[in-house]
Amino acid sequence: MMKTRGCCASICQCFFEYSTPKILVIRSFKVGTLNRITQALVIAYVIGYVCVLNKGYQDTDAVLSSVTTKVKGIALTNTSDLGLRIWDVADYVIPPQEENSFFVLTNLLITLNQTQSHCPEVPKTGFDCTSDRDCKAGSRDTRGNGVQTGKCVKYSAVDKTCEVLAWCPLELDKEPPNPPMLADAENFTVLIKNSIRYPKFNFNKRNILPYVNKTYLEQCVFNRITDPDCPIFRLKDMVTEANEDFQTMAVHGGVMGVQIRWECDLDMPSSWCVPRYTFRRLDNKDPVNNVAPGYNFRFAKYYKNGNNEETRTLIKGFGIRFDVIVFGQAGKFNIVPTLLNVGTGLALLGLVTVVCDWIVLTCMTKKNIYNEEKYSYVDDFQLLSNETP
Amino acid sequence: MMKTRGCCASICQCFFEYSTPKILVIRSFKVGTLNRITQALVIAYVIGYVCVLNKGYQDTDAVLSSVTTKVKGIALTNTSDLGLRIWDVADYVIPPQEENSFFVLTNLLITLNQTQSHCPEVPKTGFDCTSDRDCKAGSRDTRGNGVQTGKCVKYSAVDKTCEVLAWCPLELDKEPPNPPMLADAENFTVLIKNSIRYPKFNFNKRNILPYVNKTYLEQCVFNRITDPDCPIFRLKDMVTEANEDFQTMAVHGGVMGVQIRWECDLDMPSSWCVPRYTFRRLDNKDPVNNVAPGYNFRFAKYYKNGNNEETRTLIKGFGIRFDVIVFGQAGKFNIVPTLLNVGTGLALLGLVTVVCDWIVLTCMTKKNIYNEEKYSYVDDFQLLSNETP
Amino acid sequence: MMKTRGCCASICQCFFEYSTPKILVIRSFKVGTLNRITQALVIAYVIGYVCVLNKGYQDTDAVLSSVTTKVKGIALTNTSDLGLRIWDVADYVIPPQEENSFFVLTNLLITLNQTQSHCPEVPKTGFDCTSDRDCKAGSRDTRGNGVQTGKCVKYSAVDKTCEVLAWCPLELDKEPPNPPMLADAENFTVLIKNSIRYPKFNFNKRNILPYVNKTYLEQCVFNRITDPDCPIFRLKDMVTEANEDFQTMAVHGGVMGVQIRWECDLDMPSSWCVPRYTFRRLDNKDPVNNVAPGYNFRFAKYYKNGNNEETRTLIKGFGIRFDVIVFGQAGKFNIVPTLLNVGTGLALLGLVTVVCDWIVLTCMTKKNIYNEEKYSYVDDFQLLSNETP
Repeated sequence: MMKTRGCCASICQCFFEYSTPKILVIRSFKVGTLNRITQALVIAYVIGYVCVLNKGYQDTDAVLSSVTTKVKGIALTNTSDLGLRIWDVADYVIPPQEENSFFVLTNLLITLNQTQSHCPEVPKTGFDCTSDRDCKAGSRDTRGNGVQTGKCVKYSAVDKTCEVLAWCPLELDKEPPNPPMLADAENFTVLIKNSIRYPKFNFNKRNILPYVNKTYLEQCVFNRITDPDCPIFRLKDMVTEANEDFQTMAVHGGVMGVQIRWECDLDMPSSWCVPRYTFRRLDNKDPVNNVAPGYNFRFAKYYKNGNNEETRTLIKGFGIRFDVIVFGQAGKFNIVPTLLNVGTGLALLGLVTVVCDWIVLTCMTKKNIYNEEKYSYVDDFQLLSNETP
Repeated sequence: MMKTRGCCASICQCFFEYSTPKILVIRSFKVGTLNRITQALVIAYVIGYVCVLNKGYQDTDAVLSSVTTKVKGIALTNTSDLGLRIWDVADYVIPPQEENSFFVLTNLLITLNQTQSHCPEVPKTGFDCTSDRDCKAGSRDTRGNGVQTGKCVKYSAVDKTCEVLAWCPLELDKEPPNPPMLADAENFTVLIKNSIRYPKFNFNKRNILPYVNKTYLEQCVFNRITDPDCPIFRLKDMVTEANEDFQTMAVHGGVMGVQIRWECDLDMPSSWCVPRYTFRRLDNKDPVNNVAPGYNFRFAKYYKNGNNEETRTLIKGFGIRFDVIVFGQAGKFNIVPTLLNVGTGLALLGLVTVVCDWIVLTCMTKKNIYNEEKYSYVDDFQLLSNETP
Repeated sequence: MMKTRGCCASICQCFFEYSTPKILVIRSFKVGTLNRITQALVIAYVIGYVCVLNKGYQDTDAVLSSVTTKVKGIALTNTSDLGLRIWDVADYVIPPQEENSFFVLTNLLITLNQTQSHCPEVPKTGFDCTSDRDCKAGSRDTRGNGVQTGKCVKYSAVDKTCEVLAWCPLELDKEPPNPPMLADAENFTVLIKNSIRYPKFNFNKRNILPYVNKTYLEQCVFNRITDPDCPIFRLKDMVTEANEDFQTMAVHGGVMGVQIRWECDLDMPSSWCVPRYTFRRLDNKDPVNNVAPGYNFRFAKYYKNGNNEETRTLIKGFGIRFDVIVFGQAGKFNIVPTLLNVGTGLALLGLVTVVCDWIVLTCMTKKNIYNEEKYSYVDDFQLLSNETP
């Protein structure tokens, strides 16, 4: 019975033990100063940089976003092909709706009344011919516009080219008009509605801020200084903010990034979480080291004439695609990253001891005294040494 | 030679040294209990919260996703303009395919037989006139529909407005029909195919789960309780799940988020990694503090009449855009985050010593004994003190 | 005054103190070796795996991307419906422009000259009838093509089906042609322009690398071995790289992922940051456990005939959608993650002492000596023990 009690007591003793390292305190100006400065540095870093600047005490989440856009404006063109013509939103936004982007037609090359028929290729190296032998029936060149029939026909008074089966007449390979046809596009406005969500924090917000009222929205235009919260943007202003010239860009088209940044500290009032708009040209305007500069694509409107034959109007449309890029992250206090950073900070304080020990025990004049006091030895080598003759 | 051996032995000694701190063990009920409780708290936090709940032992990866959608259904409308008319998928899904989203037309304002010509502006402040002097040739107002010709013409028996060059007749500025024209859209179904990939773990999956067979897929409709794995959704069900009324939403249109969440623990069987569907309205339906509520856009169908003149049918289409938002992350055991968290946990255990030491050495009755045993001193200030008179 | 000085001195003493743990050094082959090996393992792990392989010293950022695409090529089809017909980019890319994806039509089922009228349903279970009583006026089945009129009419010499109001003639429910109509699509090429941005590091780059010149770009085609930097891709090559057969895939369509990976170490020269292209089929081609395999959608071209009646050509288009998926992350040296990892490494070194201590103090033969030297005791239980009888 005594034995059980003894065992019990021993376990108790073990449980109610507290182990703490024995400490040697060195009282010295030099060593103390060194120690305190190093400690101060580490603590300042952990608190100042990690916790305050990098918000190490916060859990973060990436943004989920939804964007709708609505362009407004009218453009007038006057060409020999089309005469005086009005372009409205149904004409110049192609396709009529997209998810995070919209395209505004600013310039175009139009080829009217194309039908599936035969016509001579556009003169280019490889399509010129002098007789039918130069043309190969069935050949389809990726640079060409159709399938060769094998005949060599007159393209103009001087040129002969291979005949092709294609949508004829062919589109002429020429530069887009300069100034651009829809030069009026610079005054178009676009309303960008963006609603965001941080799923981890169940936080929703949209870019029409609570204090913005309907009357204001009906007449405002974004201006970084006077109207920074208006979600209606003039196309020219966006391009200008990206240090580009609208009329120059409109000729060959291009891609603009409308960046909406939501950097939210959800420990602060939610009204502080506001979108920041920036604009950037995304494509490369540099003519060197580039192919197909700008942004264009071909599309067609299909008609049927009286004979039930299909004709089409081919349009090579140049224009500006605006990609609405929503990014940013939200942070909110969370105990896990906080303790992670506190733990790391403590570990770094351990580094202080390592550094100071090294200096104290190797560089100080009294290093022998310190060494003696700090270290005790249990030496197994004495046995070993004795064994060696 | 003896010297070399001595040197050698010294390096050997140094290498085969093991330094361990000298420990003062305090056997005391109070101190021991305090120590064990604090330790238990830290260990419980590290294991329970960080490792189990937050899965701190896992490396994570964000999802890459591909979505295709296919809408099915037929709607019937009966209007004075169009008569009895059937709408099928080629009519009401605009554009016919998109990457992560699809739009279903639910309501529309149609303006038939527009041509490029002259007509009086729609009466609005700014467009009313009494004589030609009130109109300015070439003026294009962003709220207007065309370019003014400078004439003042009769709009109706009582109103006179400025004449414009535009697509005439102009669209009337009226509210969309209520109930919505394509009210039948509530019964349309959509098949959403989603395949995802976690590139870091080379893991692929799709939302048609392995045990779902073709027969089931041909007739099932998603239901959170009875058919939670069916990837075919009735439009009305999706809107209802977001606590909205389909017919109300259909009038002015809107944006719905179809959120597919893939939260996968890849340490578990891959069959546990299944999609979770949630639905949320993304646009703001609140009429206060809003412009252009709902979701609509204008598009046109272009025709040529017998005289080769272009006419168009302008449609202001209201409808619901469904954005398929795929998110989530996968986690899999990885030694790096595990050791990161273990390291941090150990560092936090160091915090226990700091806290307990402070309590033991300042608050306990026997603190002097503890202090004496724990600390030894090497005092450089004695010299200093002796120097001061 | 003496007291103030005494107090001052005491604070001074406290400030200029340096506390360092007292260390017991055990000189032993076994223990030393164990210690050094464990230390080496931890240090090797921290430096080798965390810092070098996982680049733990770097801050990371996710990529922002913008993509434009331009498809080129001509296809020739010869069918009884359409005769000999050329397809160019305006015909087969639908919609003409998208943000991060493009669709190429490879096969189609065409239904010409549809008008809003009455016609018998396509024979299917549920639509067969023998008399008007089998058909329900106003019924609209989701599998059907229109709204039933309630009449039972002849579909063919043998079949009678319910009459519907629909776009008539109805599309026949048949398999797409095999070989695909636009088999030529395999030789189409696409120019993919991708410009990326790492906003945190203000780093921009595009996939047309600086040393690539215009002449090269005008004639190159991507090839993993000979032309790995050419941004022009032949459609067939992309499909082949994904281990699929283009002609097979073209019949029913599908979804291809064009993955562009930008893994950039911004501590290295920026010229080392180059895109890596990989191709993967994203949809499921497995016919088991699948509905609507492949990728297709319906769209229509609308015409007006001489009587101002609307007719349309319905096209069920099969084709390959190419989703351009840009991903990757950039890393750059940053002091915060570096110190986080160093701190964790140090904490793990603390683990070494724990493990070695346990071995030394419980398994070694001289454990009693070590224990005696390492631990001192302050025992509160003596009092307790004395009290117990």
